This record gives sequence, structure tokens and C-alpha cells, in this order.
Amino acid sequence: MPVSLSATLAVNEAIAQRRRSGLPVLPLGFGEAGLPVHPVLREALSRGAGMNTYGPVAGTWELREAAAGYWERRGIPADPALTLAGPGSKPLLYGMLLALGGDAAIAAPSWVSYAAQTCLAGQRPLPVPAAPEHGGVPQPDLLAAAVTDARNRGREVRSVIVTVPDNPTGTLAGPETLRLLAETARELDLVIVSDEIYRDLVYDPRAEVHSPAEFAPERTVVSTGVSKNLALGGWRLGTVRLPDSDTGRRLWRGLLGVASEIWSSPAAPVQQAAAYAYTEPEEITEHIARSRRLHGIVAEAVTERFRSAGARVAQPQAGFYLYPDFAGMRSHLTAELGVGTGSELTSHLLEQYGMGVLPAQEFGEDPHALRMRVATSQLYGETEEQRYAALHAETPTELPWVRAHLDRLEEVLGEVTRLWREDRGMADAQAG
Amino acid sequence: MPVSLSATLAVNEAIAQRRRSGLPVLPLGFGEAGLPVHPVLREALSRGAGMNTYGPVAGTWELREAAAGYWERRGIPADPALTLAGPGSKPLLYGMLLALGGDAAIAAPSWVSYAAQTCLAGQRPLPVPAAPEHGGVPQPDLLAAAVTDARNRGREVRSVIVTVPDNPTGTLAGPETLRLLAETARELDLVIVSDEIYRDLVYDPRAEVHSPAEFAPERTVVSTGVSKNLALGGWRLGTVRLPDSDTGRRLWRGLLGVASEIWSSPAAPVQQAAAYAYTEPEEITEHIARSRRLHGIVAEAVTERFRSAGARVAQPQAGFYLYPDFAGMRSHLTAELGVGTGSELTSHLLEQYGMGVLPAQEFGEDPHALRMRVATSQLYGETEEQRYAALHAETPTELPWVRAHLDRLEEVLGEVTRLWREDRGMADAQAG
Repeated sequence: MPVSLSATLAVNEAIAQRRRSGLPVLPLGFGEAGLPVHPVLREALSRGAGMNTYGPVAGTWELREAAAGYWERRGIPADPALTLAGPGSKPLLYGMLLALGGDAAIAAPSWVSYAAQTCLAGQRPLPVPAAPEHGGVPQPDLLAAAVTDARNRGREVRSVIVTVPDNPTGTLAGPETLRLLAETARELDLVIVSDEIYRDLVYDPRAEVHSPAEFAPERTVVSTGVSKNLALGGWRLGTVRLPDSDTGRRLWRGLLGVASEIWSSPAAPVQQAAAYAYTEPEEITEHIARSRRLHGIVAEAVTERFRSAGARVAQPQAGFYLYPDFAGMRSHLTAELGVGTGSELTSHLLEQYGMGVLPAQEFGEDPHALRMRVATSQLYGETEEQRYAALHAETPTELPWVRAHLDRLEEVLGEVTRLWREDRGMADAQAG
Repeated sequence: MPVSLSATLAVNEAIAQRRRSGLPVLPLGFGEAGLPVHPVLREALSRGAGMNTYGPVAGTWELREAAAGYWERRGIPADPALTLAGPGSKPLLYGMLLALGGDAAIAAPSWVSYAAQTCLAGQRPLPVPAAPEHGGVPQPDLLAAAVTDARNRGREVRSVIVTVPDNPTGTLAGPETLRLLAETARELDLVIVSDEIYRDLVYDPRAEVHSPAEFAPERTVVSTGVSKNLALGGWRLGTVRLPDSDTGRRLWRGLLGVASEIWSSPAAPVQQAAAYAYTEPEEITEHIARSRRLHGIVAEAVTERFRSAGARVAQPQAGFYLYPDFAGMRSHLTAELGVGTGSELTSHLLEQYGMGVLPAQEFGEDPHALRMRVATSQLYGETEEQRYAALHAETPTELPWVRAHLDRLEEVLGEVTRLWREDRGMADAQAG
């Protein structure tokens, strides 16, 4: 089954190429946390350097107990015996699709890999629109209709994957949406797979953070990892919590079988460091709090630039993403830039300005949608020193390298939207 | 797609349970190298503890260059641009099956995961007998017949997986077998996937070590890892070398796409340590030489015990496995123990004596085969101290804990084969 190389990789490569050629770049394409490893975690990894046994396929008991504690503290009932660790939440999600069997409903838009993984697993994704302000969760009424319709056409839909908080929109589905989702899933007998990898990064003080596992504990699988909250993407460690029910126990055994045949276990020294992190000692929670604050400040500053240029942006609340929409200036963009699809617009931004973002199409949306995912976490700096400075700055947007990126963004957006803004007498106010 | 939990896990669990209950065990079921991490690799991992970016999906260029050098020094042409690193050779093999598509021919017997992975990938394995003394490679004439027949029945067979040297038999296919394999693969247009993870552990001084990549470089994929030669199973790092041909380039891109959707990249700190190891500095080659010697001495001592008890054993040459056959005493085993299948025999050994081995059936053979895979690497000790002592002992079989295991094995085999040996007037000579 051939798979095409993901768009993220292509954008990364183009950005790297431009950097090597000394051309200016605006790296807004890649969802990596862009922050340093906390020193206590470096030490924990070093202490684990003598660990070389495969260990249990599900991960060490110490890690699974710590992960269960992490969930319990967030109001999600979790049993270490029903948790499982893997080399990233990505392989765990893929393994879960194999263990589940059948097709999965996903939100449109949603993270690129859900659809790709579903196809790799020999299944088909069933995309269902999410509300722009409550991204990551298929709208419950539309979900019910889509699943019923698909089943009537002979498809076996067994699960729905949600992202809480969301990538690509940076928004957060509220408790009412999750309650309705849980009800719908119960009525349709769907397993909910809730990807909560951005959960610790909700910076909106008004947001109420909940998990579908609170509303349907018996049928909700929750996945997380250390890639986003602790910026340890390169360490490859994720965990998953299975429900305490017959379904949950069956899925746990299925996932364990898949894990034993595909990846054996996550790296032992990393497991030991992650087990420490999941106990949430003060230095770790403080580090995460600082990261969350930084992500919020920069994401809001970037949101502000897009809005000033005339794009519509649902208020991001978590993580380091926003999802601006240029639909309101379609005719102007077409007239000025010859742009008719989202990927034509993002290609223009990349080729003309070195601005790397991903078009909505990559997230399962219509090719003509003029939306794009903007990742803000690569703006914190290129060196460890700059990233530490960003993490500890009172006003990170005033650090020269962050400021320069924001100014450049304003300039680029000013040029791209010039015609539209001129029509509104806004040109002088915006173009640099 | 539900998968059953592998037999290795079940045996491991039973052995651990007995240990916890204070019952005697003979741990011969698990293919883990059972040796400590070399101190320079601990240091290398610690030096990499600040590395937290995902990095390239294919692995860092440094690692891929080092891996290519490793292969070049073994007479296998390799291009860093056509290598790819993953979290173990196991996920790489699985990813390769997805990238290849179509069914894969495998040897019978062969490593448990080839068949399981083929099924997980939505394909079907085509088992072809291997010669007992040249395990891991389907006999080329039988391979040609089986593939032709399968194709005539409408199956799409695209590859053949070989293990050189072999797990479960510990034997090594010689150059003549590999030359014929290459010819057959060329005639049938099959890709050869050569799992060479035990390659550095050939202890038989008479063995000629070759790879199918020498005979069919244009169509041979070679995989390896640091789990066996460096005992770093728990670090999860494998590499694969794709051929420099249109097929090779297509498969590399396919595997890269799979990797990006399933696991992203191997753990960054581990990559950095592995890159160092693949440059093969003297302390590493010396460490591997010591390990190889220890594996050979203990595997031969265990082979000797099985032969003395009357089992037939193809001379192991590499790794830490042997594959004894009790077919010659079938009627006696049935009369004395009520045993008719391989798994009845291994269950008896486990329940009666705590001796954990895997029946031939797990490796794709007939359930009635009275063969079993015996892994010898868990006999070196339970503590790091004991394992270091084993690694450095002039005569490791005389270390008290190794000796005790060997004596216990002699005793167990003596009891199990008593009736057969009595018939031959051998009882006194063997039973302890």
C-alpha cells in the first residue's frame, strides 16, 4: 500500500533548503514544541542509560502507574493495568486503529495522521465537520447522521477520533459538546479515541478543560505523550488509557498484541525519565506552566497579525496553532495572486516569502478552502539559548528574534492582502 | 484485525511468575542478549540527553552515514541516502511489508514476527521449508515452486524474507544457498528482505559470512539493529539498507511515508549513541567480540546437553539459539509423558520444571513437530555483575550460576528422556 509523503515533511524540507541558501524563512509549518529539555529530565535519562532490556511490551509498571496518576489528577479514572506506553502517541493511535478494526469517524479538519493511519490500517476514515470554535470533535448531530448513513451503505464504523484540545485549530471543545459526543457515541456504540496530547497547554484562562472520558468513561480511550507539554518529541514516548470495561480490556489485549509485533516496547531509558515526569514534581509543573504561557503569548500575537490583515481566526486557546481563514478575500486573492485553492495560496507564501504553513486540504478539508494551519512554536528561536530566553522572558514578543519574525509576518500578510485592504482603505494602516 | 499475544510473552510471564513464587526456572525462552550496556554507549546516550527534536523521519544523516559505513565494511554496497533508521528493526520490517505490498514468502521455521507482521499488514505469509543446517532461507528450489504455484492461484507474492544468520536455528546459510536464492529471486522478480541482526554474532570459525546483498544487490533490502550485537534491545534502534535501484528508491520513499505516519523517528538520544557505535571504534568491536565468544561457548554447552540426552541438533553457528529435535523419541515421549505435539512437550517442560522454550509451531512449523527453540542468553546471570563476569570469564561455563543452569538442564533432559535412554542402556550415563 503506497503512501505519499506527508505535507509537513515537504514544507520542512523546503524551509530547510531556503535556510541553507541564506533565504529568509517564516517557519510556521511544523508542530514541534521548540523548547529545551528540562535539566531534571536530562539527568533522569542519563540515570537510565544502563537500562537495556526490552521490558514489558506495555511499558514498565512504574511508568504505567505514574501515567494513571497523571490522569486521575485530571478527573479521568485510570488503572495502570489498563494503560500502555509506546514510542510516541502516534504508534499507539495506529495500533489502536488495528485493534479496533472497522472504519473511524474523524473531524474535518483534523490532524493529518488520523486519515493517513486509517488508510495504512486498511480502513477508511469518515470525515465529519467540526465547529470552527470547537475544533477536534465532529459535531455530534452530524456525526450521528454520517455514521448512520455510512452503516446503511454497509460500512462498519466502530470508532470516532477526537482531539481535545485541537490540532490544527488550537481551539478546545467545551463540556456541552463533549457531553453530546458521549451520548451520540453511546447511542451508536462507538469507541471514542480522545487524543489529549495538548491538554496541559490550555492557556486560555476562561477555558474549561474536560475529557470525553468524564462523560463516557466506559468507551473512551485517552492518549497522551511527552512531545508537546515537555517538548520531548524526539524522545518518542506516549501513553494510552483504556476504559475499565469489557471493550476496554479487549482493546488493551489487542493493542498489546499489535505492540508486541510492531515495536516491542518504548526505549527503556526514556520510559524511566517519563515515569519521573508523570509523577509531576514541582519543577516539571512549573516548566510546563512557563511553556504554556509562552505558547499562549506568541499564538495570540500571531493571531493578532492575521486578524489585522483581514483573516478570520477562531480564538486559539491551547497548544501552538491557529487556523486562519482567508475566504472573505477570495476574489481579491484570485485577482492579485491567481490563487484559487488553499494549496495555491500556501505555495505562494512558501515560494514568495519562505513562509511555511499547511493548507486546510492536508487536514481533510476541501481543496478550495483558503484556510491554513499556522504553527507558532518555531518562532522562539533557533538556539537553546534563545529558547531558554523566550521561556523566561516577561514579554517574549519583545525579544529581537521573536519580534523580527512577527514583523516579517506582518509585512508578508500586508503584501498578500494589499488589494483587499486597499478596497477597504486599510492599506496604510497595515503594510509595513 | 485481532492478533493473539505472542508465545514469547506468555512464556516470559510464566517464568516471571515462577521466579516470584520462588520456584526454580530454566529461562531458555527469550531472545534477549542478556549482557550489559558498554560504558562508552552509556556516556554517548547521556551526551544526547539534550536532543529533543523529532529530526528527520529517516534518522539523522550522521547515523545513516555510520550505518552505511558498517555495511560497506562487510562488503555490502550501501548509500546513506538509501538507509533508514527506526525504533528497532522490527518496526522497519513491518513498514517494509506495508511498502512492498503483496504477500511475502518466509522460511519455515522462521522468527515468529514475520508471519504475524504479514497478517497485521493485511497480507498472507507463504511458508517455504528451510534446510535444517542452513536455516532462515527458504530452499531455493522449493521457493520457486511455491511462488509459482501461489501466483498460479492468483496470489501476488512480491518478496521473500530471510534471516542470515538464523533465529530460531542459530545456523547460517552458506554462499551457495544465497547464490541460488539470489538467482531464484531474480527469475521470479522477488525483493529479498534479509534480516541480518545476528550477523556480528557468528562464532563458528569455519563459517563463511555472506549477505544475499552480495549476490543480488539490486533487489536486496538488509536490516539490522543494535539489539543483539550490542545487547541494546531496550534502546529500540534498527536500520535498513535499501538497494540502489529503481525498486530500492521506490521502496525507500514508501518506507519513509509509512515511518512518518506510524513512528515519526527513533529516539534522538539513542540515534546519537547508535551513530557512534556504527563507526565501530575499537572498544565496541572488542566488546562485540567478547559477547560473540560468550554466546558461542554457552550455546555449544547447551547443544552438548541436548545431544547427550538424545535430541538431534543442527550445529548452531551464530547468535544465542539452537533448535533441538526430539522426533527420534516420539513414541517414548508419548508413552512416558502423554506428549504428542510440540506445544504439549514445551508445556510439560514449563509446568514440570520451569523450563521455558518455544515450540516449533510458533515458528510456523507443524504442531506435531517435536522441535523447540532454545535461547541461551538468559543463562549468563541475573545481575549486571554476573553478566560482566560471564563476559570476561575465560571459561564462563564454570561460573557457579552458569554451571548450575547447565546442570539443571542436564537433569531435566535426563528425566524427560529417561525411557528412551533406558531402552538404549544410556540412563546411568545421563541422569544426574
